[in-house]
Amino acid sequence: MNFKKIAGIEAAKYVKDGMIVGLGTGSTAKYMVDEIGRRVKEEGLTITGVTTSNETERQAKSLNIPLKSIDEVPYVDLTIDGADEISADFQGIKGGGAALLFEKIVATYSKKCIWIVDDSKMVEKLGKFPLPIEVIPYGSQQLMHLFEEKGYQPTLRLDDEGKTLITDGGHNIIDLHLNEIDNPVEFGHYLDQLVGVVEHGLFLNTVSLVIVGNQDGPQTIKVPQ
Amino acid sequence: MNFKKIAGIEAAKYVKDGMIVGLGTGSTAKYMVDEIGRRVKEEGLTITGVTTSNETERQAKSLNIPLKSIDEVPYVDLTIDGADEISADFQGIKGGGAALLFEKIVATYSKKCIWIVDDSKMVEKLGKFPLPIEVIPYGSQQLMHLFEEKGYQPTLRLDDEGKTLITDGGHNIIDLHLNEIDNPVEFGHYLDQLVGVVEHGLFLNTVSLVIVGNQDGPQTIKVPQ
Repeated sequence: MNFKKIAGIEAAKYVKDGMIVGLGTGSTAKYMVDEIGRRVKEEGLTITGVTTSNETERQAKSLNIPLKSIDEVPYVDLTIDGADEISADFQGIKGGGAALLFEKIVATYSKKCIWIVDDSKMVEKLGKFPLPIEVIPYGSQQLMHLFEEKGYQPTLRLDDEGKTLITDGGHNIIDLHLNEIDNPVEFGHYLDQLVGVVEHGLFLNTVSLVIVGNQDGPQTIKVPQ
Repeated sequence: MNFKKIAGIEAAKYVKDGMIVGLGTGSTAKYMVDEIGRRVKEEGLTITGVTTSNETERQAKSLNIPLKSIDEVPYVDLTIDGADEISADFQGIKGGGAALLFEKIVATYSKKCIWIVDDSKMVEKLGKFPLPIEVIPYGSQQLMHLFEEKGYQPTLRLDDEGKTLITDGGHNIIDLHLNEIDNPVEFGHYLDQLVGVVEHGLFLNTVSLVIVGNQDGPQTIKVPQ
Protein backbone atom coordinates (compact mmCIF):
# COMPACT_ATOMS: atom_id res chain seq x y z
CA MET A 1 0.00 0.00 0.00
CA ASN A 2 1.19 3.52 -0.83
CA PHE A 3 1.84 5.46 2.39
CA LYS A 4 1.84 8.83 0.59
CA LYS A 5 -1.57 8.06 -0.88
CA ILE A 6 -2.92 7.01 2.53
CA ALA A 7 -1.92 10.39 4.00
CA GLY A 8 -3.15 12.36 1.00
CA ILE A 9 -6.61 10.81 0.96
CA GLU A 10 -7.02 11.16 4.74
CA ALA A 11 -6.11 14.88 4.62
CA ALA A 12 -8.70 15.60 1.93
CA LYS A 13 -11.38 14.70 4.51
CA TYR A 14 -10.60 17.96 6.35
CA VAL A 15 -11.73 19.99 3.35
CA LYS A 16 -15.29 21.29 3.79
CA ASP A 17 -17.73 23.05 1.48
CA GLY A 18 -16.97 26.72 0.94
CA MET A 19 -13.38 26.55 2.09
CA ILE A 20 -10.46 28.35 0.47
CA VAL A 21 -7.86 25.59 0.31
CA GLY A 22 -4.11 25.91 -0.23
CA LEU A 23 -3.01 23.06 -2.48
CA GLY A 24 0.55 21.91 -1.87
CA THR A 25 3.09 20.57 -4.31
CA GLY A 26 4.93 17.28 -4.59
CA SER A 27 4.42 13.54 -4.79
CA THR A 28 2.30 13.29 -1.63
CA ALA A 29 0.28 16.47 -2.19
CA LYS A 30 -0.56 15.09 -5.64
CA TYR A 31 -2.69 12.36 -4.07
CA MET A 32 -4.50 14.92 -1.91
CA VAL A 33 -5.26 17.12 -4.93
CA ASP A 34 -6.50 14.06 -6.85
CA GLU A 35 -8.80 13.17 -3.94
CA ILE A 36 -10.15 16.73 -3.70
CA GLY A 37 -10.74 16.61 -7.44
CA ARG A 38 -12.68 13.36 -6.99
CA ARG A 39 -14.80 14.91 -4.23
CA VAL A 40 -15.49 17.99 -6.39
CA LYS A 41 -16.62 15.75 -9.22
CA GLU A 42 -18.44 12.97 -7.33
CA GLU A 43 -19.67 14.71 -4.18
CA GLY A 44 -20.24 18.19 -5.56
CA LEU A 45 -17.71 19.67 -3.08
CA THR A 46 -17.48 23.43 -3.59
CA ILE A 47 -14.09 24.95 -2.77
CA THR A 48 -11.65 27.51 -4.06
CA GLY A 49 -8.11 26.23 -4.49
CA VAL A 50 -4.99 28.34 -4.13
CA THR A 51 -2.03 26.65 -5.76
CA THR A 52 1.60 26.66 -4.70
CA SER A 53 3.24 25.90 -8.05
CA ASN A 54 2.69 25.81 -11.78
CA GLU A 55 2.71 22.02 -11.51
CA THR A 56 -0.17 21.89 -9.00
CA GLU A 57 -2.03 24.54 -10.96
CA ARG A 58 -1.97 22.31 -14.02
CA GLN A 59 -3.15 19.32 -12.00
CA ALA A 60 -5.95 21.24 -10.28
CA LYS A 61 -7.15 22.72 -13.57
CA SER A 62 -7.27 19.27 -15.15
CA LEU A 63 -9.51 18.19 -12.24
CA ASN A 64 -11.78 21.24 -12.62
CA ILE A 65 -10.98 22.55 -9.13
CA PRO A 66 -11.80 26.29 -9.19
CA LEU A 67 -8.64 28.33 -8.53
CA LYS A 68 -7.68 31.76 -7.34
CA SER A 69 -4.32 33.38 -6.74
CA ILE A 70 -3.21 34.10 -3.16
CA ASP A 71 -3.81 37.78 -4.00
CA GLU A 72 -7.45 37.21 -4.94
CA VAL A 73 -8.53 35.74 -1.58
CA PRO A 74 -8.66 37.42 1.83
CA TYR A 75 -6.92 34.43 3.45
CA VAL A 76 -6.68 30.65 3.13
CA ASP A 77 -8.80 28.48 5.47
CA LEU A 78 -6.65 25.39 5.22
CA THR A 79 -3.46 24.47 3.38
CA ILE A 80 -2.51 20.84 2.87
CA ASP A 81 1.04 20.22 1.76
CA GLY A 82 3.80 17.68 1.95
CA ALA A 83 7.08 18.01 3.84
CA ASP A 84 10.54 16.59 3.32
CA GLU A 85 11.34 16.25 7.00
CA ILE A 86 9.36 16.82 10.20
CA SER A 87 11.20 16.94 13.52
CA ALA A 88 9.97 15.64 16.87
CA ASP A 89 8.92 19.21 17.73
CA PHE A 90 7.06 19.60 14.43
CA GLN A 91 9.39 21.96 12.61
CA GLY A 92 9.80 21.16 8.95
CA ILE A 93 12.04 21.21 5.93
CA LYS A 94 10.32 21.75 2.60
CA GLY A 95 11.52 22.51 -0.89
CA GLY A 96 12.62 19.15 -2.27
CA GLY A 97 10.19 19.85 -5.10
CA ALA A 98 11.58 23.38 -5.59
CA ALA A 99 8.23 25.00 -4.71
CA LEU A 100 9.18 26.27 -1.25
CA LEU A 101 8.74 29.97 -2.01
CA PHE A 102 5.14 29.84 -3.17
CA GLU A 103 4.39 27.12 -0.58
CA LYS A 104 5.64 29.41 2.18
CA ILE A 105 3.73 32.40 0.82
CA VAL A 106 0.48 30.41 0.82
CA ALA A 107 1.21 28.91 4.26
CA THR A 108 1.84 32.42 5.65
CA TYR A 109 -1.72 33.48 4.86
CA SER A 110 -3.34 30.19 5.96
CA LYS A 111 -5.36 29.84 9.15
CA LYS A 112 -4.39 26.20 9.42
CA CYS A 113 -1.78 23.95 7.79
CA ILE A 114 -1.84 20.18 7.52
CA TRP A 115 1.30 18.35 6.46
CA ILE A 116 1.01 14.95 4.87
CA VAL A 117 3.94 12.56 4.77
CA ASP A 118 4.90 8.94 4.69
CA ASP A 119 6.53 7.76 7.88
CA SER A 120 10.08 8.03 6.47
CA LYS A 121 9.85 11.83 6.82
CA MET A 122 9.44 11.81 10.59
CA VAL A 123 12.83 12.45 12.24
CA GLU A 124 14.18 13.42 15.62
CA LYS A 125 16.13 16.48 14.44
CA LEU A 126 16.08 18.32 11.12
CA GLY A 127 19.03 18.36 8.76
CA LYS A 128 19.62 14.95 7.18
CA PHE A 129 17.49 16.17 4.28
CA PRO A 130 19.41 18.86 2.38
CA LEU A 131 18.00 22.28 3.24
CA PRO A 132 16.83 24.10 0.10
CA ILE A 133 17.62 27.81 -0.18
CA GLU A 134 15.95 29.82 -2.94
CA VAL A 135 18.43 32.43 -4.17
CA ILE A 136 18.70 35.25 -6.68
CA PRO A 137 20.71 33.97 -9.67
CA TYR A 138 22.86 37.16 -9.67
CA GLY A 139 25.33 36.53 -6.86
CA SER A 140 24.46 32.85 -6.43
CA GLN A 141 28.10 31.82 -6.88
CA GLN A 142 29.10 34.29 -4.14
CA LEU A 143 26.56 32.61 -1.84
CA MET A 144 27.95 29.21 -2.83
CA HIS A 145 31.42 30.38 -1.71
CA LEU A 146 30.03 31.76 1.54
CA PHE A 147 28.18 28.52 2.31
CA GLU A 148 31.28 26.48 1.43
CA GLU A 149 33.38 28.54 3.82
CA LYS A 150 30.79 27.99 6.53
CA GLY A 151 31.02 24.22 5.96
CA TYR A 152 27.41 23.88 4.80
CA GLN A 153 28.40 21.74 1.80
CA PRO A 154 26.20 23.60 -0.70
CA THR A 155 25.17 22.22 -4.08
CA LEU A 156 23.47 24.23 -6.80
CA ARG A 157 20.40 22.26 -7.84
CA LEU A 158 20.15 21.15 -11.48
CA ASP A 159 17.03 20.30 -13.43
CA ASP A 160 16.32 17.03 -15.25
CA GLU A 161 18.38 18.20 -18.21
CA GLY A 162 21.41 18.97 -16.07
CA LYS A 163 21.00 22.74 -16.34
CA THR A 164 20.77 25.07 -13.34
CA LEU A 165 17.22 24.70 -12.03
CA ILE A 166 14.98 27.76 -12.35
CA THR A 167 12.08 27.92 -9.88
CA ASP A 168 8.57 29.14 -10.72
CA GLY A 169 9.69 32.48 -9.28
CA GLY A 170 12.72 32.69 -11.60
CA HIS A 171 15.34 31.91 -8.96
CA ASN A 172 17.88 29.15 -8.27
CA ILE A 173 18.05 26.60 -5.44
CA ILE A 174 21.13 25.89 -3.32
CA ASP A 175 20.85 22.75 -1.17
CA LEU A 176 22.76 22.81 2.11
CA HIS A 177 24.00 19.46 3.38
CA LEU A 178 24.00 20.19 7.09
CA ASN A 179 23.35 16.71 8.50
CA GLU A 180 21.90 18.23 11.68
CA ILE A 181 20.38 21.64 12.41
CA ASP A 182 20.79 22.38 16.10
CA ASN A 183 18.67 25.50 16.28
CA PRO A 184 16.33 25.87 13.28
CA VAL A 185 14.85 29.19 14.48
CA GLU A 186 18.28 30.80 14.86
CA PHE A 187 19.50 29.35 11.56
CA GLY A 188 16.36 30.59 9.83
CA HIS A 189 17.02 34.11 11.07
CA TYR A 190 20.60 33.91 9.85
CA LEU A 191 19.40 32.87 6.38
CA ASP A 192 16.62 35.51 6.33
CA GLN A 193 19.10 38.36 6.60
CA LEU A 194 21.50 37.10 3.92
CA VAL A 195 21.45 39.30 0.83
CA GLY A 196 20.51 37.22 -2.21
CA VAL A 197 18.51 34.65 -0.24
CA VAL A 198 14.86 34.89 -1.31
CA GLU A 199 13.54 32.24 1.06
CA HIS A 200 14.66 29.08 2.82
CA GLY A 201 13.11 25.68 3.34
CA LEU A 202 12.75 25.87 7.12
CA PHE A 203 9.03 26.01 7.86
CA LEU A 204 8.87 26.91 11.53
CA ASN A 205 5.80 26.96 13.78
CA THR A 206 3.70 26.47 10.68
CA VAL A 207 1.84 23.18 10.97
CA SER A 208 -1.13 22.37 13.23
CA LEU A 209 -1.88 18.80 12.12
CA VAL A 210 0.42 16.12 10.72
CA ILE A 211 -0.97 13.09 8.92
CA VAL A 212 1.52 10.26 8.58
CA GLY A 213 0.89 7.37 6.26
CA ASN A 214 2.33 4.07 7.48
CA GLN A 215 1.56 0.36 7.38
CA ASP A 216 -1.28 0.73 9.91
CA GLY A 217 -3.02 3.42 7.83
CA PRO A 218 -3.11 7.17 8.44
CA GLN A 219 -1.87 8.39 11.81
CA THR A 220 -3.09 11.89 12.72
CA ILE A 221 -1.01 13.96 15.11
CA LYS A 222 -2.33 17.20 16.55
CA VAL A 223 0.56 19.62 17.04
CA PRO A 224 0.63 21.19 20.53
CA GLN A 225 0.24 24.97 20.05
CA MET B 1 26.29 73.81 -11.65
CA ASN B 2 25.02 70.23 -11.37
CA PHE B 3 25.60 68.90 -7.85
CA LYS B 4 25.09 65.28 -8.91
CA LYS B 5 27.73 65.66 -11.60
CA ILE B 6 30.17 67.26 -9.11
CA ALA B 7 29.86 64.22 -6.81
CA GLY B 8 30.00 61.71 -9.66
CA ILE B 9 33.19 63.12 -11.18
CA GLU B 10 34.90 63.43 -7.78
CA ALA B 11 34.13 59.78 -6.93
CA ALA B 12 35.63 58.51 -10.18
CA LYS B 13 39.02 59.77 -8.91
CA TYR B 14 39.05 56.92 -6.38
CA VAL B 15 39.13 54.35 -9.17
CA LYS B 16 42.64 53.02 -9.77
CA ASP B 17 44.18 50.82 -12.45
CA GLY B 18 43.41 47.13 -12.02
CA MET B 19 40.44 47.60 -9.73
CA ILE B 20 37.21 45.64 -9.87
CA VAL B 21 34.63 48.42 -9.59
CA GLY B 22 30.95 48.12 -8.73
CA LEU B 23 29.03 50.55 -10.91
CA GLY B 24 25.88 51.91 -9.30
CA THR B 25 22.60 52.89 -10.89
CA GLY B 26 20.67 56.14 -11.09
CA SER B 27 20.96 59.76 -12.12
CA THR B 28 24.04 60.50 -9.98
CA ALA B 29 25.83 57.21 -10.66
CA LYS B 30 25.36 57.90 -14.36
CA TYR B 31 27.83 60.81 -14.16
CA MET B 32 30.36 58.63 -12.36
CA VAL B 33 30.06 55.90 -15.03
CA ASP B 34 30.45 58.52 -17.75
CA GLU B 35 33.59 59.85 -16.06
CA ILE B 36 35.06 56.36 -15.68
CA GLY B 37 34.30 55.79 -19.36
CA ARG B 38 36.14 59.00 -20.17
CA ARG B 39 39.16 57.90 -18.12
CA VAL B 40 39.16 54.47 -19.81
CA LYS B 41 39.14 56.13 -23.21
CA GLU B 42 41.41 59.13 -22.61
CA GLU B 43 43.74 57.95 -19.83
CA GLY B 44 43.88 54.24 -20.66
CA LEU B 45 42.46 53.33 -17.25
CA THR B 46 42.18 49.54 -16.95
CA ILE B 47 39.36 48.30 -14.75
CA THR B 48 36.70 45.63 -14.61
CA GLY B 49 33.21 46.93 -13.99
CA VAL B 50 30.48 45.00 -12.17
CA THR B 51 27.08 46.48 -12.95
CA THR B 52 24.06 46.76 -10.68
CA SER B 53 21.32 46.98 -13.32
CA ASN B 54 20.53 46.38 -16.96
CA GLU B 55 20.48 50.16 -17.38
CA THR B 56 24.04 50.64 -16.11
CA GLU B 57 25.18 47.62 -18.09
CA ARG B 58 23.96 49.28 -21.30
CA GLN B 59 25.68 52.55 -20.38
CA ALA B 60 28.98 50.86 -19.45
CA LYS B 61 29.00 48.79 -22.62
CA SER B 62 28.43 51.89 -24.73
CA LEU B 63 31.51 53.40 -23.04
CA ASN B 64 33.60 50.26 -23.65
CA ILE B 65 34.12 49.62 -19.93
CA PRO B 66 35.01 45.90 -19.60
CA LEU B 67 32.34 44.13 -17.52
CA LYS B 68 31.97 40.98 -15.47
CA SER B 69 29.10 39.61 -13.44
CA ILE B 70 29.37 39.57 -9.64
CA ASP B 71 29.73 35.78 -9.96
CA GLU B 72 32.79 36.06 -12.21
CA VAL B 73 34.93 38.07 -9.75
CA PRO B 74 36.32 37.02 -6.36
CA TYR B 75 35.15 40.32 -4.80
CA VAL B 76 34.70 43.98 -5.69
CA ASP B 77 37.42 46.47 -4.68
CA LEU B 78 35.22 49.53 -4.69
CA THR B 79 31.56 50.20 -5.42
CA ILE B 80 30.37 53.71 -6.21
CA ASP B 81 26.63 54.25 -6.10
CA GLY B 82 24.01 56.88 -5.40
CA ALA B 83 21.63 56.98 -2.44
CA ASP B 84 18.16 58.42 -1.96
CA GLU B 85 18.70 59.42 1.65
CA ILE B 86 21.69 59.37 4.00
CA SER B 87 21.15 59.90 7.70
CA ALA B 88 23.42 61.72 10.13
CA ASP B 89 24.83 58.34 11.20
CA PHE B 90 25.42 57.30 7.57
CA GLN B 91 22.70 54.73 7.14
CA GLY B 92 20.99 54.89 3.77
CA ILE B 93 17.83 54.37 1.79
CA LYS B 94 18.29 53.20 -1.78
CA GLY B 95 15.96 51.85 -4.45
CA GLY B 96 14.35 54.93 -5.92
CA GLY B 97 15.66 53.68 -9.24
CA ALA B 98 14.32 50.16 -8.56
CA ALA B 99 17.81 48.62 -8.67
CA LEU B 100 18.16 48.01 -4.93
CA LEU B 101 18.44 44.22 -5.12
CA PHE B 102 21.42 44.02 -7.46
CA GLU B 103 22.92 47.14 -5.83
CA LYS B 104 22.77 45.42 -2.44
CA ILE B 105 24.20 42.18 -3.83
CA VAL B 106 27.17 44.03 -5.33
CA ALA B 107 27.65 46.13 -2.17
CA THR B 108 27.67 42.95 -0.07
CA TYR B 109 30.76 41.66 -1.84
CA SER B 110 32.54 45.03 -1.99
CA LYS B 111 35.54 45.88 0.16
CA LYS B 112 34.61 49.56 0.12
CA CYS B 113 31.52 51.55 -0.87
CA ILE B 114 31.36 55.22 -1.80
CA TRP B 115 27.98 56.93 -2.00
CA ILE B 116 27.59 59.99 -4.19
CA VAL B 117 24.72 62.41 -3.66
CA ASP B 118 23.67 65.99 -4.05
CA ASP B 119 23.22 67.77 -0.74
CA SER B 120 19.42 67.37 -0.75
CA LYS B 121 19.88 63.69 0.16
CA MET B 122 21.59 64.37 3.49
CA VAL B 123 19.02 64.14 6.31
CA GLU B 124 18.98 63.83 10.06
CA LYS B 125 16.83 60.68 10.20
CA LEU B 126 15.78 58.27 7.45
CA GLY B 127 12.19 57.91 6.33
CA LYS B 128 10.97 60.99 4.49
CA PHE B 129 11.99 59.23 1.29
CA PRO B 130 9.61 56.30 0.70
CA LEU B 131 11.35 53.03 1.60
CA PRO B 132 11.39 50.64 -1.38
CA ILE B 133 10.69 46.97 -0.69
CA GLU B 134 11.34 44.46 -3.47
CA VAL B 135 8.69 41.75 -3.25
CA ILE B 136 7.64 38.53 -4.97
CA PRO B 137 4.66 39.32 -7.24
CA TYR B 138 2.77 36.26 -5.91
CA GLY B 139 1.42 37.45 -2.57
CA SER B 140 2.26 41.11 -3.13
CA GLN B 141 -1.34 42.17 -2.44
CA GLN B 142 -1.23 40.27 0.86
CA LEU B 143 1.90 42.24 1.77
CA MET B 144 0.13 45.46 0.74
CA HIS B 145 -2.68 44.60 3.20
CA LEU B 146 -0.19 43.81 5.94
CA PHE B 147 1.71 47.06 5.43
CA GLU B 148 -1.58 49.01 5.35
CA GLU B 149 -2.64 47.47 8.65
CA LYS B 150 0.71 48.42 10.13
CA GLY B 151 0.19 52.03 9.01
CA TYR B 152 3.14 52.05 6.62
CA GLN B 153 1.09 53.66 3.81
CA PRO B 154 2.33 51.30 1.08
CA THR B 155 2.06 52.02 -2.63
CA LEU B 156 2.76 49.51 -5.38
CA ARG B 157 5.20 51.16 -7.76
CA LEU B 158 4.15 51.60 -11.38
CA ASP B 159 6.35 51.99 -14.43
CA ASP B 160 6.26 54.86 -16.92
CA GLU B 161 3.34 53.26 -18.71
CA GLY B 162 1.28 52.98 -15.55
CA LYS B 163 1.70 49.21 -15.27
CA THR B 164 3.03 47.42 -12.19
CA LEU B 165 6.80 47.91 -12.29
CA ILE B 166 8.89 44.77 -12.82
CA THR B 167 12.47 44.95 -11.53
CA ASP B 168 15.49 43.51 -13.32
CA GLY B 169 15.07 40.49 -11.00
CA GLY B 170 11.44 39.99 -12.05
CA HIS B 171 9.88 41.30 -8.84
CA ASN B 172 7.65 44.23 -7.80
CA ILE B 173 8.39 47.23 -5.59
CA ILE B 174 6.24 48.41 -2.70
CA ASP B 175 7.16 51.87 -1.37
CA LEU B 176 6.52 52.46 2.32
CA HIS B 177 5.68 56.02 3.34
CA LEU B 178 7.02 55.97 6.86
CA ASN B 179 8.01 59.61 7.31
CA GLU B 180 10.52 58.64 9.99
CA ILE B 181 12.32 55.36 10.76
CA ASP B 182 13.26 55.31 14.41
CA ASN B 183 15.42 52.21 14.40
CA PRO B 184 16.56 51.24 10.90
CA VAL B 185 18.47 48.14 12.06
CA GLU B 186 15.45 46.74 13.90
CA PHE B 187 13.10 47.61 11.05
CA GLY B 188 15.47 45.98 8.56
CA HIS B 189 15.41 42.76 10.58
CA TYR B 190 11.62 42.86 10.67
CA LEU B 191 11.49 43.22 6.88
CA ASP B 192 14.14 40.52 6.33
CA GLN B 193 12.03 37.84 7.95
CA LEU B 194 8.80 38.71 6.10
CA VAL B 195 7.84 36.00 3.63
CA GLY B 196 7.58 37.45 0.13
CA VAL B 197 10.06 40.25 0.78
CA VAL B 198 13.10 39.72 -1.43
CA GLU B 199 15.09 42.71 -0.21
CA HIS B 200 14.56 46.17 1.25
CA GLY B 201 16.07 49.55 0.58
CA LEU B 202 17.74 50.02 3.96
CA PHE B 203 21.49 49.89 3.37
CA LEU B 204 22.96 49.65 6.85
CA ASN B 205 26.61 49.91 7.83
CA THR B 206 27.49 49.78 4.16
CA VAL B 207 29.24 52.99 3.20
CA SER B 208 32.76 54.11 4.07
CA LEU B 209 32.94 57.40 2.17
CA VAL B 210 30.22 59.86 1.20
CA ILE B 211 30.79 62.47 -1.48
CA VAL B 212 28.25 65.27 -1.43
CA GLY B 213 27.93 67.70 -4.28
CA ASN B 214 26.90 71.20 -3.24
CA GLN B 215 27.43 74.80 -4.25
CA ASP B 216 30.99 74.78 -2.87
CA GLY B 217 31.99 71.72 -4.92
CA PRO B 218 32.42 68.16 -3.73
CA GLN B 219 32.48 67.58 0.02
CA THR B 220 34.06 64.27 1.05
CA ILE B 221 33.02 62.73 4.35
CA LYS B 222 34.88 59.75 5.79
CA VAL B 223 32.42 57.56 7.68
CA PRO B 224 33.64 56.64 11.19
CA GLN B 225 33.98 52.82 11.31
